[in-house]
Amino acid sequence: MLNKLSSVTCFGGQQLRYEHQSKVLNCTMQFSVYLPPQAEQGPVPAVYWLSGLTCTDENFSSKAGAQRTAAELGLALIIPDTSPRGDEVPDADDGAYDFGLGAGFYVNATQNPYAKHYHMDRYIVDELRELVEANLPLNGVRSISGHSMGGHGALVLALRNPGLYRSVSAFAPIANPTTCPWGQKAFRGYLGDDVEAWRDYDAVELLRSGKACPPLFVDQGSADQFLAEQLGFDTLKSTCESAQVDATLRLQAGYDHSYYFIATFITDHLRFHAQYLVD
Amino acid sequence: MLNKLSSVTCFGGQQLRYEHQSKVLNCTMQFSVYLPPQAEQGPVPAVYWLSGLTCTDENFSSKAGAQRTAAELGLALIIPDTSPRGDEVPDADDGAYDFGLGAGFYVNATQNPYAKHYHMDRYIVDELRELVEANLPLNGVRSISGHSMGGHGALVLALRNPGLYRSVSAFAPIANPTTCPWGQKAFRGYLGDDVEAWRDYDAVELLRSGKACPPLFVDQGSADQFLAEQLGFDTLKSTCESAQVDATLRLQAGYDHSYYFIATFITDHLRFHAQYLVD
Repeated sequence: MLNKLSSVTCFGGQQLRYEHQSKVLNCTMQFSVYLPPQAEQGPVPAVYWLSGLTCTDENFSSKAGAQRTAAELGLALIIPDTSPRGDEVPDADDGAYDFGLGAGFYVNATQNPYAKHYHMDRYIVDELRELVEANLPLNGVRSISGHSMGGHGALVLALRNPGLYRSVSAFAPIANPTTCPWGQKAFRGYLGDDVEAWRDYDAVELLRSGKACPPLFVDQGSADQFLAEQLGFDTLKSTCESAQVDATLRLQAGYDHSYYFIATFITDHLRFHAQYLVD
Repeated sequence: MLNKLSSVTCFGGQQLRYEHQSKVLNCTMQFSVYLPPQAEQGPVPAVYWLSGLTCTDENFSSKAGAQRTAAELGLALIIPDTSPRGDEVPDADDGAYDFGLGAGFYVNATQNPYAKHYHMDRYIVDELRELVEANLPLNGVRSISGHSMGGHGALVLALRNPGLYRSVSAFAPIANPTTCPWGQKAFRGYLGDDVEAWRDYDAVELLRSGKACPPLFVDQGSADQFLAEQLGFDTLKSTCESAQVDATLRLQAGYDHSYYFIATFITDHLRFHAQYLVD
């Protein structure tokens, strides 16, 4: 069921926070939703936002300023947490920020002790989607976006589930995780040593394998401290060109990896999605 | 002097954080500044933002989404902290959130042990203003705004310093602090038991005494949990009418005291100020 924790008026709509028991994750989860004013008249389309490392559902809610444009366009925002949560959920052995709690990487873990809880892929794609679409004024039309680890998540979930999301966008995504330290650490921990299994969660590898991609929009800051080592922007760009994806990838001069970057361009992303979501 | 701690690109301008030694406050202070893209071409006008209880300079910077409109209008944002800071600065005896650190109330304290550090009035009006106007591309034309305790600060500093600020605005200001628990506690602690001394820092009392007020714009949420006990909106409204202030005071149905309320209406406030700041 859905337990409403808070409701705050914002840009004429409602910023909401919910709690529920997740069967997929085997724990209690919280998530945030923005319902635009149009949701009072009838069901609206949704943009799912997947956050990056260390975030909860509250970072994007409070820092991106996305509600302004969502209210203007009549889009709901569905904002999940970034991992299973709770005392019973195993964290990284060393408490690292880039594995375990706050770092679920949107995969279905197969390795113990993570396999009991870390199924963020199925959580986002199935359980949370079904829950919000059954209980909130959503019309079942949806797109997906995210930042960094969440940009990886948005790309991968869109590529793995043809037809589920009408469009996909990302800010500074970890586009080729099988080749970068963040991705390799996470995939080894959640998926094991078999590198073949990792490819199913790597956007560049999925594109190379011929997976269809919905219309794609990516922003990447040129002053992003993680650009060279972790993000794979150039590889994503060349792979999209080879795969003839309907894609716009922009390198934004001077921008870093922070929410100031996201706040600057989130309106462009929501307008991009609205083309495919709003009749 | 001015030590730059960080600089992040945001809406084509720069979100900056500085540190300096404050003579007025006898401690090291940090503050934030947003410089719009227009500041690269020449000096720009400034809106000072005074934050509320428990805030630092980072709350407004990261949560209000004000940079979007500031960039559009060519306004700098000057965002000070809410009290002196540091191990040597006395806090409330009981660590309360509404007195001491994070709760300077924009007065010049006369009572020990606070009189050595708590001079947020002189800090904002003189020291910080002179510092930023001497070191940043500002044209010396300025307005002031704030939230809650900072709304009180904005009103009082504008009323106490005729001509210094071209316009003033506030979100949910503590408009009549001599009559509410937050104000009485703070004024007794910083200013002592002589209630006469309190009136110099009470917006409603200053208006009643005939102080001139620059053009004024106020938003107040009807669902604000502090409205009845702390804020004095109706008293401010009737006092403005009696004093024939050029004022717009809006009660916004359903909004609370949070940054979601501020984010919703900050554009209106910046547009209001721009009328008086931009030729």
